[in-house]
Amino acid sequence: MTSSFIAIDWGTTNRRSYRIESGAVADTWRDDKGVLAMVGGDWAGEVAAIRARHGDLPVLIAGMAGSNRGWREAAYVDCPASLDSLAAAIAWIEPRRTGIVPGVAQRAPDPDVMRGEEVQLLGAVAAGLVPADALLCQPGTHCKWAEMRGGALAGFATAMTGEIFALLKGHSLLAPQLAGAVADGAPFRDGVRRAARGDLTTALFGVRAATLLGQRSEAESAAYASGLLIGSDVAARAVEGAPVHILADPALGGLYAAAVDTLGGRSHLVDSHAAFVAGITALMERIS
Amino acid sequence: MTSSFIAIDWGTTNRRSYRIESGAVADTWRDDKGVLAMVGGDWAGEVAAIRARHGDLPVLIAGMAGSNRGWREAAYVDCPASLDSLAAAIAWIEPRRTGIVPGVAQRAPDPDVMRGEEVQLLGAVAAGLVPADALLCQPGTHCKWAEMRGGALAGFATAMTGEIFALLKGHSLLAPQLAGAVADGAPFRDGVRRAARGDLTTALFGVRAATLLGQRSEAESAAYASGLLIGSDVAARAVEGAPVHILADPALGGLYAAAVDTLGGRSHLVDSHAAFVAGITALMERIS
Repeated sequence: MTSSFIAIDWGTTNRRSYRIESGAVADTWRDDKGVLAMVGGDWAGEVAAIRARHGDLPVLIAGMAGSNRGWREAAYVDCPASLDSLAAAIAWIEPRRTGIVPGVAQRAPDPDVMRGEEVQLLGAVAAGLVPADALLCQPGTHCKWAEMRGGALAGFATAMTGEIFALLKGHSLLAPQLAGAVADGAPFRDGVRRAARGDLTTALFGVRAATLLGQRSEAESAAYASGLLIGSDVAARAVEGAPVHILADPALGGLYAAAVDTLGGRSHLVDSHAAFVAGITALMERIS
Repeated sequence: MTSSFIAIDWGTTNRRSYRIESGAVADTWRDDKGVLAMVGGDWAGEVAAIRARHGDLPVLIAGMAGSNRGWREAAYVDCPASLDSLAAAIAWIEPRRTGIVPGVAQRAPDPDVMRGEEVQLLGAVAAGLVPADALLCQPGTHCKWAEMRGGALAGFATAMTGEIFALLKGHSLLAPQLAGAVADGAPFRDGVRRAARGDLTTALFGVRAATLLGQRSEAESAAYASGLLIGSDVAARAVEGAPVHILADPALGGLYAAAVDTLGGRSHLVDSHAAFVAGITALMERIS
């Protein structure tokens, strides 16, 4: 198909659009008109406005716009998922002109779903940013861990790491102690090591107990608690000596890298925007 | 000392007072004037009102009234804690007339604290409701697990089980799915078994994924999620074939008993009110 097109990463709370020319980003725009802001909204009108900005080009949308709360539901593709299986299952609003990339479902052993992350994951392999057989991690509100095999998405797990930290910080007994800054350092890594011993919900109560007993300052508690949650997430999947490829912004990616390294893994940071652009371009190339 | 006295279990959100005569409850009263409702309040006046209700007797208070947000801070007694060490450390507002039982601290290996639960735990042993060497469990917002050795409180762990369930139900992505009833049954026990495999934050996301993929009904999701949290708590401590003594009301105690039994332990329900009365009476007897 055409080598110029518009890609939209349409998430729950934000969206980012790109004009892509021959695989490179020519123009990009980001705002907060995510799916939640679009409830009852004019999806076709929004896409027309994006075309007015980026040009009258084919549009390929990834993310929650394809969920049952989005524009049109794009049925999940099963694991193992590839660029080919995703491209074949694009939900077309208008054939070859406006389409929505499906999400991916894992039905066993543990049920799991993703929407949007699959483009980054498969794109990272397609662009040669990660090997075809690799463990990938996408930190965030819901952290995705993906097992790539032969370049396909073989299986994955979603941890509610970021959301649980936000719940604890916003609404729990620990809230007053979680107001401090979170950065890599000794308290964060102490949390990571404690998390590797398991029993997360008890370790979290220990955040409060340690300050009551004068064993840790209030100022260090947020970093320690973040270490507990991220460490719990990493310890469940990272293998000593094995690489973990982390797709994230530098701040959150850096915390995950520190946790991986603390527990004996080998962290590699990957440019997640480059991975998305590579993935969505590879999908566009498959539309004949 | 006198065989008649007033005991008050003064918690964060509620308080219960008892007139105890020769170790038996002659009268009891419960309301919601917990520590949170007492901020800036007249503690001495409240105790005078309780004496007006139950009689002009010595008063022994247990619970959060002795915390740094309570009436007067009663410094923690260290593990191993006994009825003797607690009695010796009572913080007297007025000698032998109005006193506050201290909480218990564990400083290593993991820092932990309790206030109020220690009276129940030591009382359960004193009353012969549990053996002198036993694993005790007090389910609740913050579930306490206590290791009794030779009748003393040797060590303990606090899991934020109930609070995390409330956070998820009240504020999380899972909230719409956690509105259903929680009772023992196949979904609850499925959750318990899944929890024993670890990785709680991923199992919790699976609650949503399973309903999206049609693997579990919305109606069953709350019981399954409760099984995940309680099962995670139980799996971290219960040993196959070994007894766990559960001090709780029948509803919550029944869920913990089901989780213990599902994971191969042997659950025993203990009357927690009887344990408290036995414990506070044993403390009063030690005041000479």
